Amino acid sequence: MKKTAIIMGSDSDLKVVEKGIAVLEEFGVPYEVHVFSAHRTPAQLQEFVKSAEENDFGVIIAAAGMAAHLAGAVAAATILPVIGIPIKSACFEGMDALLSTVMMPPGIPVATVGVDGAKNAALLALEILAPGDAQLAQKLKQHRAAAAEAVLEKNAAIEEKFNH
Amino acid sequence: MKKTAIIMGSDSDLKVVEKGIAVLEEFGVPYEVHVFSAHRTPAQLQEFVKSAEENDFGVIIAAAGMAAHLAGAVAAATILPVIGIPIKSACFEGMDALLSTVMMPPGIPVATVGVDGAKNAALLALEILAPGDAQLAQKLKQHRAAAAEAVLEKNAAIEEKFNH
Amino acid sequence: MKKTAIIMGSDSDLKVVEKGIAVLEEFGVPYEVHVFSAHRTPAQLQEFVKSAEENDFGVIIAAAGMAAHLAGAVAAATILPVIGIPIKSACFEGMDALLSTVMMPPGIPVATVGVDGAKNAALLALEILAPGDAQLAQKLKQHRAAAAEAVLEKNAAIEEKFNH
Amino acid sequence: MKKTAIIMGSDSDLKVVEKGIAVLEEFGVPYEVHVFSAHRTPAQLQEFVKSAEENDFGVIIAAAGMAAHLAGAVAAATILPVIGIPIKSACFEGMDALLSTVMMPPGIPVATVGVDGAKNAALLALEILAPGDAQLAQKLKQHRAAAAEAVLEKNAAIEEKFNH
Amino acid sequence: MKKTAIIMGSDSDLKVVEKGIAVLEEFGVPYEVHVFSAHRTPAQLQEFVKSAEENDFGVIIAAAGMAAHLAGAVAAATILPVIGIPIKSACFEGMDALLSTVMMPPGIPVATVGVDGAKNAALLALEILAPGDAQLAQKLKQHRAAAAEAVLEKNAAIEEKFNH
Amino acid sequence: MKKTAIIMGSDSDLKVVEKGIAVLEEFGVPYEVHVFSAHRTPAQLQEFVKSAEENDFGVIIAAAGMAAHLAGAVAAATILPVIGIPIKSACFEGMDALLSTVMMPPGIPVATVGVDGAKNAALLALEILAPGDAQLAQKLKQHRAAAAEAVLEKNAAIEEKFNH
Amino acid sequence: MKKTAIIMGSDSDLKVVEKGIAVLEEFGVPYEVHVFSAHRTPAQLQEFVKSAEENDFGVIIAAAGMAAHLAGAVAAATILPVIGIPIKSACFEGMDALLSTVMMPPGIPVATVGVDGAKNAALLALEILAPGDAQLAQKLKQHRAAAAEAVLEKNAAIEEKFNH
Amino acid sequence: MKKTAIIMGSDSDLKVVEKGIAVLEEFGVPYEVHVFSAHRTPAQLQEFVKSAEENDFGVIIAAAGMAAHLAGAVAAATILPVIGIPIKSACFEGMDALLSTVMMPPGIPVATVGVDGAKNAALLALEILAPGDAQLAQKLKQHRAAAAEAVLEKNAAIEEKFNH
Repeated sequence: MKKTAIIMGSDSDLKVVEKGIAVLEEFGVPYEVHVFSAHRTPAQLQEFVKSAEENDFGVIIAAAGMAAHLAGAVAAATILPVIGIPIKSACFEGMDALLSTVMMPPGIPVATVGVDGAKNAALLALEILAPGDAQLAQKLKQHRAAAAEAVLEKNAAIEEKFNH
Repeated sequence: MKKTAIIMGSDSDLKVVEKGIAVLEEFGVPYEVHVFSAHRTPAQLQEFVKSAEENDFGVIIAAAGMAAHLAGAVAAATILPVIGIPIKSACFEGMDALLSTVMMPPGIPVATVGVDGAKNAALLALEILAPGDAQLAQKLKQHRAAAAEAVLEKNAAIEEKFNH
Repeated sequence: MKKTAIIMGSDSDLKVVEKGIAVLEEFGVPYEVHVFSAHRTPAQLQEFVKSAEENDFGVIIAAAGMAAHLAGAVAAATILPVIGIPIKSACFEGMDALLSTVMMPPGIPVATVGVDGAKNAALLALEILAPGDAQLAQKLKQHRAAAAEAVLEKNAAIEEKFNH
Repeated sequence: MKKTAIIMGSDSDLKVVEKGIAVLEEFGVPYEVHVFSAHRTPAQLQEFVKSAEENDFGVIIAAAGMAAHLAGAVAAATILPVIGIPIKSACFEGMDALLSTVMMPPGIPVATVGVDGAKNAALLALEILAPGDAQLAQKLKQHRAAAAEAVLEKNAAIEEKFNH
Repeated sequence: MKKTAIIMGSDSDLKVVEKGIAVLEEFGVPYEVHVFSAHRTPAQLQEFVKSAEENDFGVIIAAAGMAAHLAGAVAAATILPVIGIPIKSACFEGMDALLSTVMMPPGIPVATVGVDGAKNAALLALEILAPGDAQLAQKLKQHRAAAAEAVLEKNAAIEEKFNH
Repeated sequence: MKKTAIIMGSDSDLKVVEKGIAVLEEFGVPYEVHVFSAHRTPAQLQEFVKSAEENDFGVIIAAAGMAAHLAGAVAAATILPVIGIPIKSACFEGMDALLSTVMMPPGIPVATVGVDGAKNAALLALEILAPGDAQLAQKLKQHRAAAAEAVLEKNAAIEEKFNH
Repeated sequence: MKKTAIIMGSDSDLKVVEKGIAVLEEFGVPYEVHVFSAHRTPAQLQEFVKSAEENDFGVIIAAAGMAAHLAGAVAAATILPVIGIPIKSACFEGMDALLSTVMMPPGIPVATVGVDGAKNAALLALEILAPGDAQLAQKLKQHRAAAAEAVLEKNAAIEEKFNH
Repeated sequence: MKKTAIIMGSDSDLKVVEKGIAVLEEFGVPYEVHVFSAHRTPAQLQEFVKSAEENDFGVIIAAAGMAAHLAGAVAAATILPVIGIPIKSACFEGMDALLSTVMMPPGIPVATVGVDGAKNAALLALEILAPGDAQLAQKLKQHRAAAAEAVLEKNAAIEEKFNH
């Protein structure tokens, strides 16, 4: 099975990103986590991304805040699907990172999830990798079923509390 | 090879979406185009999406404007990767559609591209489908190379005009 | 008298919604509270909403945050009046939920109140139900009078403090 | 059957509002259209709204732009349900009117529809009035069915054009 | 000398407004403070405002949050200059109140100050009243001079700390 | 009677400002129009503003777009009331000019009207000048009455067209 | 004298950028214009920027729209001062480009000018280069004086028209 | 070597600005810090700025919040490069200061950095001053290298923790 790469622009993004890592752990899929900055370590970033395909990665998740160029820089260096997580930082509630990540020019797509949406980024990575792996597809469906079940249980608790 | 489904919330979105269709045509990949509304024809939408996996689709692109629920409704009904195109309509420059598409709750990811980003949606679909198809991956790399070449030609023209 | 249904997209919305429940309690009208997710439990949501009219509901209040599709999904499945409460979540001060709730396409209206406006949602539900119930109409007028009285008392206190 | 009142803050709003009038005409329900300004003719506005209930109105639609106080001023003077249409004017894409209409303080709800959403305002009025009128309820369901049918026809045309 | 009226939409606005009251106290000018709601006590508001001119008020300051209609409602009922203070509340950082206060339709101006700008509202009131009162004009100039002096003292402290 | 000064940051603002000039003409009050830039001709601006009080001006209107510093620069140089008109320019729908004009720091108030609100700026100037001039106050009341009359006439036309 | 480099992300930006080129022409300083894309031709961009210092460039202007990564990518590859011009494109009035350009993470500054601010970018470049060139500094002062003169002439025309 | 001037609009900005001062200290370059307000002490500000060039300053950094006119006022009075730091204050997350600083009219450029971006402002100042100082240029390159090294160390720590 192909690996998932998670790249953060700064290790301060880990508090958000670890929700995505938890998903990958839960699904038991192979992954790697890295810190590379589009601006401070562009060469190392390029080197990692350009060899990602031959190093058996199937998808790359890139998380960054502010003028978030990371996902776009990754996407420019590979034809692997790139998932961008805009990180909320001190200003603008993450709008700067969202627009910097999602409004890519024609030709270089970034699959953007919501601000701080690390869990969804990981699930999207799994959906992209699932076609080659029937077991993973099955687990994704069970994960959805469990989420539905959780809502129904909460509904039961609320109904018990309020409706009589 | 897996098919790509394009779903529009309204046929008025076609003027944007056809830039994505052109990409799929250019790459010669199998695709289908449909008009289903999350609000007006939810049953038909569900029926199509729920059978998409067994009908040999590999990815679904959903384009909608305003309070754009289409991509989320699609994503809720399948574990296939879903790509959302926020469509700019009469107000808010597409911000309503962007936020309605990208800010999905944890558990149901939508791979969102930029406002009116149909070309990038199609390219992202191809990147997702490419792993099962060496020829497609090759074409994607050639497409990138051609885009780079086009920039260099424009650069040559500009340099000729301004730098002497 | 027709019942009011309150549906939350997540039980974490209860801290906002309970201000609306308090109004319904104060007016002594019949109501039910449920947790259904437009994305995680769409089938159960549909089932509840499609039978709401015959189950003697007169109005449905739907509260959700982020890309808030809940109220729209409810409105798409019934001709009962649907009141949407956009819930403020971690980003964008509730603007994502507001636009996702209010900017509905032509044909499927959602009666949207302000962000976190659960009290107003409940009062609006009562105004909608009042025509069939003279006593309720009377209570609504008294509620307005009491609110006015409260302002006048605060004015008296302020006047006493500052104006001499 | 109760009448619907439509109040515009300016007759320049008619180009938007007439889409709502067309719905009321199509449904053959009784309605009245008026121009009253919350700021220029507050007395006449109050007089009309305060007598609306006894004059057999069941719902009031108020359309205004900029710092749109009209719907709130109407809602403050009646316990009839009040539907607000924010009108887009020269600046801010209607955001000023949307926030001025929807962010009402606790106690005085306005059922807000999308910017320039006159069609939805009229449909919402009909949904509010329908409980007292089985025929109207039936027509609303047929209207939904026709809208669904229209989408399916457009889908058929698109499918014919693109899928072979 | 003409009096200044301060009207708050809610007594919870006092924590902002008292910075304006402090200015009026410092200048020793006559003023009154009131709580009137544009929506909950429109009649009392109208009564106060309509008699403000003959009751010897020269300017009215109106402070309100959310869909802040207060200043506009005051301005519609008098030709006295009306100063609007948009109050920041739970959402949108005061943008809702700012747009609701400043974007008045042609014919009914509101002199809007910055969000929570109670101090500037009071100073503006004094500038408006000053022409009839040479002593007040003199005090305003001294106030400016004192503010400049305070900056220069801070500058001296900073220069002492950093520049050697 | 005191004069009104209108200062534009650029003569391209005249197309907006002339709606304010028309009001001053209609009321037959003395006024002057000038073009001074806060950034390009700060000295001439200062000179004009600093002598405005002794040159018998009673109020200054300042209109500017983009990072609109003009009204603030004027307000910093006089204790005359300063009215700011934010001008909409090529970007941001006038939001840049609105925030640059209204969000003044404590101590230097600018009475801000809506974006491109030249008519209201002129009326506000007249309201500020009226206390010293019973005839002007009377004209302002007549102007309000005429505006109300105009709304009522439009209402009559609309009622005639739609209500039978 | 050091040269100024202007890099556009797309030759469609030329219609904005040529206002900056006109300034450089007017001042008679050496410059070059190039088209390099941060995403499509990152290698050529890097090559140009990394050798800019030794190729006798003193400042680099980078203009790009949407998720405008160009200026940041340039700044990451050189310690020459980099001036970013955010270009307005189809959505968000240039806000996406502005935030993508200006909100750079600590360590890699971009000197950002206003949206479409090519003229100011060129003047800023000249101000940066001027210290090494007394004649250029002199011309910049004359340019300011001429701009002031132009305002005064417009003022004279306006005064002639309106003030008598 | 030329000096860097840092001007704050208020000494409350020091908590942001001191991150820039720390950079200047770290590089051992000459600088001065001042508090001057564009509105409260315009004369002293002008005096300082107009003599900055002859007092051997090479660049001026101006930091201010709200309707931040400081950087523009500085830029209008000198042809030295002026760097603007928009300061985040109580509302709008610094958007008011950003737009007030960056959207300068043609002719008077301000080199704007991100909201609260004092560190980048200082680095930009050094980049502007570096051409006359080979040692400073060398230090800037070392600073970049150290920043890259820091990222690589964090990457090593993260890799150690997650990848095995």
